[in-house]
Amino acid sequence: MTVAVLSGLVRPLVEEHLPAGIEPRWYTSVEELHALAPEAEIGWFDLDATEPMAEAVRRAEKLRWLSSIYAGLDFLPLDLLQRRGVTITNGAGINAITIAEYVVMGMLTMAKGYREVVRAQDRREWLADSPGKRELAGSRALLLGYGAIGKLIRPRLEAFGVEVTVVRRSGGDGVLAPDEWRARLGEFDWVILAVPATPETDAMIGSEELAAMKDDAVLVNIARGAVVDQDALVAALEERRIGGAFLDVTTPEPLPADHPLWQLENAHVTMHLSGRAQSKMFVRSAERFLANCRRFVAGEPLEPIFDPARGY
Amino acid sequence: MTVAVLSGLVRPLVEEHLPAGIEPRWYTSVEELHALAPEAEIGWFDLDATEPMAEAVRRAEKLRWLSSIYAGLDFLPLDLLQRRGVTITNGAGINAITIAEYVVMGMLTMAKGYREVVRAQDRREWLADSPGKRELAGSRALLLGYGAIGKLIRPRLEAFGVEVTVVRRSGGDGVLAPDEWRARLGEFDWVILAVPATPETDAMIGSEELAAMKDDAVLVNIARGAVVDQDALVAALEERRIGGAFLDVTTPEPLPADHPLWQLENAHVTMHLSGRAQSKMFVRSAERFLANCRRFVAGEPLEPIFDPARGY
Repeated sequence: MTVAVLSGLVRPLVEEHLPAGIEPRWYTSVEELHALAPEAEIGWFDLDATEPMAEAVRRAEKLRWLSSIYAGLDFLPLDLLQRRGVTITNGAGINAITIAEYVVMGMLTMAKGYREVVRAQDRREWLADSPGKRELAGSRALLLGYGAIGKLIRPRLEAFGVEVTVVRRSGGDGVLAPDEWRARLGEFDWVILAVPATPETDAMIGSEELAAMKDDAVLVNIARGAVVDQDALVAALEERRIGGAFLDVTTPEPLPADHPLWQLENAHVTMHLSGRAQSKMFVRSAERFLANCRRFVAGEPLEPIFDPARGY
Repeated sequence: MTVAVLSGLVRPLVEEHLPAGIEPRWYTSVEELHALAPEAEIGWFDLDATEPMAEAVRRAEKLRWLSSIYAGLDFLPLDLLQRRGVTITNGAGINAITIAEYVVMGMLTMAKGYREVVRAQDRREWLADSPGKRELAGSRALLLGYGAIGKLIRPRLEAFGVEVTVVRRSGGDGVLAPDEWRARLGEFDWVILAVPATPETDAMIGSEELAAMKDDAVLVNIARGAVVDQDALVAALEERRIGGAFLDVTTPEPLPADHPLWQLENAHVTMHLSGRAQSKMFVRSAERFLANCRRFVAGEPLEPIFDPARGY
């Protein structure tokens, strides 16, 4: 029997469907997880907090396969997992639909000035004109990152008549390579960050990139806060050097109450909710985990594989 | 020479491009419009307020062609225009792109509970979970009205994986006829009103239709307030018999400050801004007007024709 240490939250979705050969042990608290982790050969250690997840990984010396609902796992001791030869499957794509929907929502709300409309309704004030007067139609978007999320963003934007230029490491027709997009930044109305968090993408948008953007361009970040030099972004927003920022992610999270991003009128903070704005995450994750359990028992390759060296 | 009475607002876009044979007279106030109207053979009488427009029409006894930026002209003395044999061209489609974008924005913001996110940012509160957890993907929309706006809404929603069912008078494959949709109301997550304001569409959504909708269905109205029995809607929202309403249009407009729709937590009021949420309306209207001027001088048919008998 292979011991699997699993969250009690997924028990109703998983327990009856586990293949023979896997013996589940359920945790319902951080303490239980940390007590069970040393026995885990299979681990699904997801918690709301990342540090106790990292601690569970450190304790899991017998671990052979780590499953997670998260796409980015930069908060785990990846060196350690790599040294131990643990296979890692992640949640890439599980939340991709809702995140892609959130990106388009963010762009539309910024285009139309919808936040001011919400505030006006709260004041019972009938606005005479729209606070935002942009159309997505005919605008141009630079999409950095073309993984599961980026691939869903593109066709949604194209349906609105947005001209989407994709940046991906592997290049290709109609695609910019990582060394090409900076020189073209001034052409875009929207710069959308959908890259994985890796050393290469760390602070990839800094003061130079912000300065190269159009003065009414909007930055959309649904990747990781660290992908943006946040101090440089705050300065650019304060000086209105870009049109605005729609930030699902920030540094740190949660953002402290006294952080300037909360009150900047061109900063829209959505509290890393984009992936949570759906109700199918657990069902989709459980289906993926069970499919991988069947593969694990059969000795077949699991998917999708998270590569600690690559960072996604 | 044919006398054209035109708003001074479009003068910079129009004056130099008018064909020979048309003599423009520009108004910059209601008083000037009313003084000039009796001489108008061509009239572009648009104002922000509808009653002074109606009065200009009443005074314009020589009028042969009335041009308007508005799509719905139900506020004009249509009987009188019909009796006088005035050709009417309207703004159908001029604002269609931004209105279609606004519809999708409304659906996305309601799906994700974005209004609560805005309010949380204003409180500097980092929400732990999304106030809305719907995905557009896999949902079903009933689209009532398939004119210029409806035709743009459909492909945008389909790009999100929404199954769109269209209602149109002329029927057709995969389309419901006007006598078919009521029996199917319970199947839809979204009911979108994009119909013209006509006697047939007056109060087409009343207490029976609201009762037939799913208890979490959302009504989206970008047509006219009169298309909905608003008292019945308020009752349905108060009793949470439907999921919510995204109302770009209301009865009356502006909505009085003490109207219950302002404060219902499932009513989203956007102050008839959808068509104004763009900056190309005047340019597009001027281009359309000038093309029709050339046709008028050449004796060719104008377009698009608004039929007062049909109401659109």
